[in-house]
Amino acid sequence: MRTRDRIIDAAEQAIREFGIAGATTKRIAQQAGCSEALLYKHFAGKEALFLAVLLERLPALGPALARLRLGTGQGDLAANLTEFALTALEFYRKAAGIASGVLADPSLLSGFRTMLAERQAGPHLPIQALAEILRAEQRGGRLDEAADADAAAAMLMGACFHRANLSSFVDLLDEDEPWAAAIARTLVRK
Amino acid sequence: MRTRDRIIDAAEQAIREFGIAGATTKRIAQQAGCSEALLYKHFAGKEALFLAVLLERLPALGPALARLRLGTGQGDLAANLTEFALTALEFYRKAAGIASGVLADPSLLSGFRTMLAERQAGPHLPIQALAEILRAEQRGGRLDEAADADAAAAMLMGACFHRANLSSFVDLLDEDEPWAAAIARTLVRK
Repeated sequence: MRTRDRIIDAAEQAIREFGIAGATTKRIAQQAGCSEALLYKHFAGKEALFLAVLLERLPALGPALARLRLGTGQGDLAANLTEFALTALEFYRKAAGIASGVLADPSLLSGFRTMLAERQAGPHLPIQALAEILRAEQRGGRLDEAADADAAAAMLMGACFHRANLSSFVDLLDEDEPWAAAIARTLVRK
Repeated sequence: MRTRDRIIDAAEQAIREFGIAGATTKRIAQQAGCSEALLYKHFAGKEALFLAVLLERLPALGPALARLRLGTGQGDLAANLTEFALTALEFYRKAAGIASGVLADPSLLSGFRTMLAERQAGPHLPIQALAEILRAEQRGGRLDEAADADAAAAMLMGACFHRANLSSFVDLLDEDEPWAAAIARTLVRK
């Protein structure tokens, strides 16, 4: 396994075990069997390393968006959106630990903000990508023109993000699948 | 000012200045001008104290929900929901620091979960309260029966919660007010 991959794996494990605050570069380097100097050769800082965990180790939103885009005009739109919502939910559940750890650490958050701005990346981009797909479905007549595609995308992603966070605080009694189906049905209703 | 209020104020300030991790009971007691023992006479622990900050110091969701409930069947539903969404957004922006700090600290989170379960409280309750209001609007014929009220409530609250979090990571370019109006319009469209 390449050093870079070993470092990302070690970071993911350290975050899971010790939280963001406890996932020090010293601990991560040790676990990856490399020096801290080598870790810093691969990653400019904790921010870049944690972003790599988010983008390369979690069940990704990218492929799910690509699948949804490929399915434009095909199958049942509510069913396609339900499947997408379930993937988004899983992603946000796994990402919650990293996101909250970054939010809770003012200096890490500041570095993260700068890095996202430089790379023109950010957690708002999946909403924009979903809105584009919904606009294409509107052009194909499968989604009500009266719906605002950006608002619909913000609501679907937001509901999933919120639910992923809620389940950290309370035991939710309803199942994910019917929940996601009701969201999708309510969004695409005509 | 009563001791309890002084302690809550001091906790709110400490969280703002030092984050959850740095808002120690020692620091909070010192700032409130009381002993740690007295702090613990008023609050069983950090969990109870932070919950008090959330419930008693932030712009509350409760009054906004009450206003929305009182307005059932009155005025323009989309306008009422837009106003509510803007309050929810403000609440979640202020609550994000506490919520993420709790999420990022496994021991604090565990205590928080237990306390919420004991008090039958939790961040999912505003969604349920909003769903009840939406059901009443459905009975009055102002909201499409084809919409699932629970799903609609989860989407409105989720979109606000998500946006509040997004703005910690990136500079959002669109304004809150038209954003909230598009959300409300898309939800109540017939």
